Amino acid sequence: MEVSSKRSDPLAINSAQIRKLLVSFIRDETRNVGLDRGVVGLSGGVDSAVSCFLAAEALGKRNVLAVMMPYTSSSPESLTDAQEVIKRLGVRSETVDITPAVDAFAVGAGRPDRVRKGNVMARARMIVLYDRSAKENGLVIGTGNKTEILLGYTTHYGDDACGINPLGDLYKSQVWELAKELGVPGRIIRKKPSADLWEGQTDEGELGVSYGEVDRLLYHLVDERRSDGELRKLGFEKRLLEKVKRLMRRNQFKRRPPLIAKVSYRTVNVDFRYARDWGT
Amino acid sequence: MEVSSKRSDPLAINSAQIRKLLVSFIRDETRNVGLDRGVVGLSGGVDSAVSCFLAAEALGKRNVLAVMMPYTSSSPESLTDAQEVIKRLGVRSETVDITPAVDAFAVGAGRPDRVRKGNVMARARMIVLYDRSAKENGLVIGTGNKTEILLGYTTHYGDDACGINPLGDLYKSQVWELAKELGVPGRIIRKKPSADLWEGQTDEGELGVSYGEVDRLLYHLVDERRSDGELRKLGFEKRLLEKVKRLMRRNQFKRRPPLIAKVSYRTVNVDFRYARDWGT
Repeated sequence: MEVSSKRSDPLAINSAQIRKLLVSFIRDETRNVGLDRGVVGLSGGVDSAVSCFLAAEALGKRNVLAVMMPYTSSSPESLTDAQEVIKRLGVRSETVDITPAVDAFAVGAGRPDRVRKGNVMARARMIVLYDRSAKENGLVIGTGNKTEILLGYTTHYGDDACGINPLGDLYKSQVWELAKELGVPGRIIRKKPSADLWEGQTDEGELGVSYGEVDRLLYHLVDERRSDGELRKLGFEKRLLEKVKRLMRRNQFKRRPPLIAKVSYRTVNVDFRYARDWGT
Repeated sequence: MEVSSKRSDPLAINSAQIRKLLVSFIRDETRNVGLDRGVVGLSGGVDSAVSCFLAAEALGKRNVLAVMMPYTSSSPESLTDAQEVIKRLGVRSETVDITPAVDAFAVGAGRPDRVRKGNVMARARMIVLYDRSAKENGLVIGTGNKTEILLGYTTHYGDDACGINPLGDLYKSQVWELAKELGVPGRIIRKKPSADLWEGQTDEGELGVSYGEVDRLLYHLVDERRSDGELRKLGFEKRLLEKVKRLMRRNQFKRRPPLIAKVSYRTVNVDFRYARDWGT
């Protein structure tokens, strides 16, 4: 069957070429805004490891600050894995325990469930990264992949916040391929993906589908613009298809700037929407 | 002279009409995403007061949560003015002291200057607002005006973070007009605009120009797309013109989503960029 055939794997990438392209992207876009440094939040997972490897190659190890931001409930292995990346690359690093800040937000919040608390954690990390980017005069380099961006499996204004994102057009399966090419430690590539916001959390458990399968579905749906009928013929279950489309629609707001009520001739992000380096 | 003539004031608005339009905008866009509640961060300033008045009219006072988020150095008058808005409107309210959270971020930050600290404050407020919006199942209603958005006089992922923004296409001078129409307390309309991030801070002091003047310049530059030559003829000084254009360009990144490296057929925010209510 086409979707599972290794031979015609639509998600196959030329990792060496993608690596070159993304290294140039980081270098060019950082210099484009007049900077030469990057700040990366390192979680211990494969996405942020890949971003950090790319940033180090693009900007030089002395120009990259990797920030580890554990919460008290974070898995100790996450920190060990993040430290291994730092050791391999020789980039500068800092560890910031976000526990006191996150816990301070709980006051008056009632009894926030773990999702709300997870969102506070992701946003607290954004605060630290942006603060260090101001201190460093560096650009926050994002770590979100295309799968999570399309599904909206992110905290808005949290882990989706960055200046530039080298990984945002690569599905999770492709990030794993690129990780091998870059020499990311095998442990990090092999472990189960998790946002590590609570114990035992895994992405695939929460999404109810493997990355391999959802990535193939997203590829055919988004990149190839296939119809529901075609997707069903390719072997994707109706229930999964509906779930994925629902998630994509519901989280569309995370991918777009805030909606502004148009009352004038030219409105920001309606008809005033230059490229980011407009006029420079 | 044209720019200063009251008769041909290009910033004059039909306040009653704009009011109707923005009330409909809030009501429609909130329902559009399946919600009926709104959350507004109330600073004591005119922008957030106007947003709160509009939200109360659009959604009903019981469906609006106004959140006051003082820091220890915030002016006590800011809180009094915010409370006056709540009293007038009868909306639900909550006060959250952000001091413990903000101060927790200072640990390990070195000696952050007041700008960095101000950014932490603005982002901590975003965290509280988004947490309450999850608790309430409500939409965060923005308070940023067109002047500050165009000049980038905002904290990215802080006060610029919202679901919908009714004010983003109104210059500051126009917000003042609308405030009168809505019955916002005169004290709030008359006081000097300030982000209140440190003592004595005023917007016009920081920007080095009055809102009246910069609004007229922005109107001719952005809405009317006038050339430098035309703007000079209209009486705007070269130095101001250059400063404003520099601010607009330098802060363009705050108005756009993060830049994603394109490597596939369809890339988020390059060629995958549906309207926010796509498919619903």
